[in-house]
Amino acid sequence: MIKLAVLVSGRGTNLAAILEAAREGRLGVRPVLVLSDRPDARALSVAQTYGVRTAARDVAGPGGRRAFFAWAERELVESGAELIALAGFMRLLPAGMVQRFRWRILNIHPSLLPAFPGLDAPRQAVEHGVRISGCTVHFVDEGMDTGPIVLQAAVPVLPDDTPGTLAARIRKEEHRLYPEAIRLFAAGRLRIEGRRVRILPGQKDI
Amino acid sequence: MIKLAVLVSGRGTNLAAILEAAREGRLGVRPVLVLSDRPDARALSVAQTYGVRTAARDVAGPGGRRAFFAWAERELVESGAELIALAGFMRLLPAGMVQRFRWRILNIHPSLLPAFPGLDAPRQAVEHGVRISGCTVHFVDEGMDTGPIVLQAAVPVLPDDTPGTLAARIRKEEHRLYPEAIRLFAAGRLRIEGRRVRILPGQKDI
Repeated sequence: MIKLAVLVSGRGTNLAAILEAAREGRLGVRPVLVLSDRPDARALSVAQTYGVRTAARDVAGPGGRRAFFAWAERELVESGAELIALAGFMRLLPAGMVQRFRWRILNIHPSLLPAFPGLDAPRQAVEHGVRISGCTVHFVDEGMDTGPIVLQAAVPVLPDDTPGTLAARIRKEEHRLYPEAIRLFAAGRLRIEGRRVRILPGQKDI
Repeated sequence: MIKLAVLVSGRGTNLAAILEAAREGRLGVRPVLVLSDRPDARALSVAQTYGVRTAARDVAGPGGRRAFFAWAERELVESGAELIALAGFMRLLPAGMVQRFRWRILNIHPSLLPAFPGLDAPRQAVEHGVRISGCTVHFVDEGMDTGPIVLQAAVPVLPDDTPGTLAARIRKEEHRLYPEAIRLFAAGRLRIEGRRVRILPGQKDI
């Protein structure tokens, strides 16, 4: 079992999928901390439901972004987290934090990267007129949604989709894909080679 | 039946898929011209097999690119082509030609645009480490692979893929997708709305 911390800002639907899978013993991780940059994030009550320790600090409070991330980094180090999963966490991490936890931070993004990085990816996809979109779990590097890709899943974009209906269809895939990526990481099966991620065979696969 | 011209540079595998489907009467088009910027393109003999008129001129010959496209534009106008399909044609069209045949030029590209525009898209996809790629049929505008998207198809990128094995998997989808897009165009079922393409219902769909 490796120790998992999850960073959140919002509703916590990916968090719930991860914590549920972890509770069922499917991931090989023990969630030790859920950390939020918004004290009113609904994800915090999801964490409490699963009995996971929470920590929250308003990034808009005294000291701003800099103080928030200094605090967050201390919390993460003290938690002993070996893997950090960003789950709807809406801020770019400082380069120092990325370097400190190099290749131990995962993110999920609602597009088939490298298409549509950044904010509001389902809206970008609908406005661009693509027929296929999806989601991507990737390691976090210093860029915006640019790190090595672990897993992707595709979904169709339907003629009458709004950003909201497309986002909902993508989210369903996210809830399956993110726990799977965490499971692979925890099993030591992800090897980064340049900007590609090799998935090593599992015991059942040999 | 609308008149179709196809621009080629290479082997003509997409051309063959289009001409075969047209011969079977599935597309609602009559191929009137296959035009190449390389007199030795194998696609020219594919066209001859199907009894379609060919025209070729070396873009590296006297007058270069400018003379080539002036000649090509004359040929296209004289052919009466109502739709122009780029099938492995390796050059960006001059803006004047795009404007003259506005929204009557289609291209197929071996990636899920907007990811990996430009040359050697399967290699770009493999080197970027994506798990899913595919192909895109789009209208041609003045940019490089930037025009409104008609159809897309996804394929998996497998762990041991080379650019060649991925390109072959994508090409299989291209041979299905491109005739389908041409069929929709010929049936008057594609309506461009901003940068999105709406596919109008067909008689069978109503």
